[in-house]
Amino acid sequence: MRYALGIDVGGTKIYSAIIDECGKIVSEIEKNPTPKTYEEIKSLFESIIRKHENDIDIVAFSTCGAVNNENNHILGSTGNIAKGYPDMPFCDLSSKPVFVENDANCAAWAEYKIGASKGTKVSVMLTLGTGVGGGIIINNQLLKGQNGAAGEMHFKMYSDKRRKCTCGSWDCFEIYASGKGLKLTGEEISNNPDITTYDIVEGVNNNDSRMIEIFNKWQDDITNGIIGLANIFDPDCVVLSGSMAEFVDVEKIQNNANKEIITTPIEVKKATAGNYSGMIGAALLAFEKGVL
Amino acid sequence: MRYALGIDVGGTKIYSAIIDECGKIVSEIEKNPTPKTYEEIKSLFESIIRKHENDIDIVAFSTCGAVNNENNHILGSTGNIAKGYPDMPFCDLSSKPVFVENDANCAAWAEYKIGASKGTKVSVMLTLGTGVGGGIIINNQLLKGQNGAAGEMHFKMYSDKRRKCTCGSWDCFEIYASGKGLKLTGEEISNNPDITTYDIVEGVNNNDSRMIEIFNKWQDDITNGIIGLANIFDPDCVVLSGSMAEFVDVEKIQNNANKEIITTPIEVKKATAGNYSGMIGAALLAFEKGVL
Repeated sequence: MRYALGIDVGGTKIYSAIIDECGKIVSEIEKNPTPKTYEEIKSLFESIIRKHENDIDIVAFSTCGAVNNENNHILGSTGNIAKGYPDMPFCDLSSKPVFVENDANCAAWAEYKIGASKGTKVSVMLTLGTGVGGGIIINNQLLKGQNGAAGEMHFKMYSDKRRKCTCGSWDCFEIYASGKGLKLTGEEISNNPDITTYDIVEGVNNNDSRMIEIFNKWQDDITNGIIGLANIFDPDCVVLSGSMAEFVDVEKIQNNANKEIITTPIEVKKATAGNYSGMIGAALLAFEKGVL
Repeated sequence: MRYALGIDVGGTKIYSAIIDECGKIVSEIEKNPTPKTYEEIKSLFESIIRKHENDIDIVAFSTCGAVNNENNHILGSTGNIAKGYPDMPFCDLSSKPVFVENDANCAAWAEYKIGASKGTKVSVMLTLGTGVGGGIIINNQLLKGQNGAAGEMHFKMYSDKRRKCTCGSWDCFEIYASGKGLKLTGEEISNNPDITTYDIVEGVNNNDSRMIEIFNKWQDDITNGIIGLANIFDPDCVVLSGSMAEFVDVEKIQNNANKEIITTPIEVKKATAGNYSGMIGAALLAFEKGVL
């Protein structure tokens, strides 16, 4: 049995643990807040790696940001983390091999190997959190694209410039289907700029008709995006993960999407690989190098 | 050298010719209007095949409609052609092997093997005609999906039900980026229900500012769709083919798209494999069976 040191790098937290070839976490999970500077992040990586280096075969990073096809470097810039972070020389951090992949791609791979999309031919995973991530698996290979950046869920929901997206463009799926999207839909419908996603979810639980209207609009936006992706990929299933996915009604989304899809019907499922699917997927990908 | 009998089946015309392994047409091209009934279409296929059967190794159909992953049957229904057509028993029409693929996929494959996207890693082809077809090639394989229907360009351009699409859903890319989409954009902007795509193109040539406004709106819709596809696939290039593609300004589309794409820059090119790319691509695919 081989072992990977999985390190999941997000904007607020960095998780790490040792993971075996079955995707099982076999050590304690270490949690650190993400340091504010490049140097501090690098030092944290070095100290985590130093601790475990003798017990592992490979270091597997699941990181925010798009990662190149050689799985050793971040492409372009990355929001929500120290400015210099994309220049991190991942491979110099350990004497063991180092593998790097985008966090949404890693989570999609974990779902495909041990979770909700296990056994499928074509699957699309959408991570609904503060933003939206995407990972697409086609015939046992991760869709990476020309340079490795594929799977960005920035296709337009409107073409008349209503909401500025975090990417700088307008009306991307992310700015409608994310937690931020739910808040913006809430602001628009309630005319209350201070409304929070918590208010909306709480309101739905209390049967507040206005909050239900907001929530349904948000869920319809997710459904509309899924319809387009299904017509493009003809997938077996679409997996929804991330903190916002726990609130959605996957059965309703599946039924409504299948009414409009012109390819073949899909299943819509919630992710089952758990909160650490990023580092688990990174480890499993690192073992397999199953990257297009 | 092996030879295929290529048969391209569209809603109005059926082309056929013998094609060699290099994608070269080595016989006269036969053109027939598409018969109105299933029986007449079947008889026409039989008579074309009978004529050439002894000189070929395989029969390669490029057809309207989605085709299954076994490349022997059409999935679901198909507009603009005799109602029973999707049940055509293609493989029973010849004593030689028969290969069937969707026409947009075939044309995309021809561009990839001998045309505008030759040598690329990931390419997206959009066929802009009366409707819009799509074909996606990833690492030398055609994206077919779960059941073979992938590549349908029915993702939404708006989420508030403005234009009914031919697929029965609302506001798909097809109903904005097609020739029909240009006419509808013309109707909306000019308030003239009788405006034709010809009027618009002619008006643009004569420097009519209203017609230029209509045309630019249509071209911006195409650009917006390409931005989404580029963020999803991170392709080397997007190829535009079909009767409407001759009017577009690919350089302008490329520049505007690259301003918004967050993956990596793309090239936008016009197709170069010619009017018979459907049957050429069908033949080349039949030889290679390069289908995911």
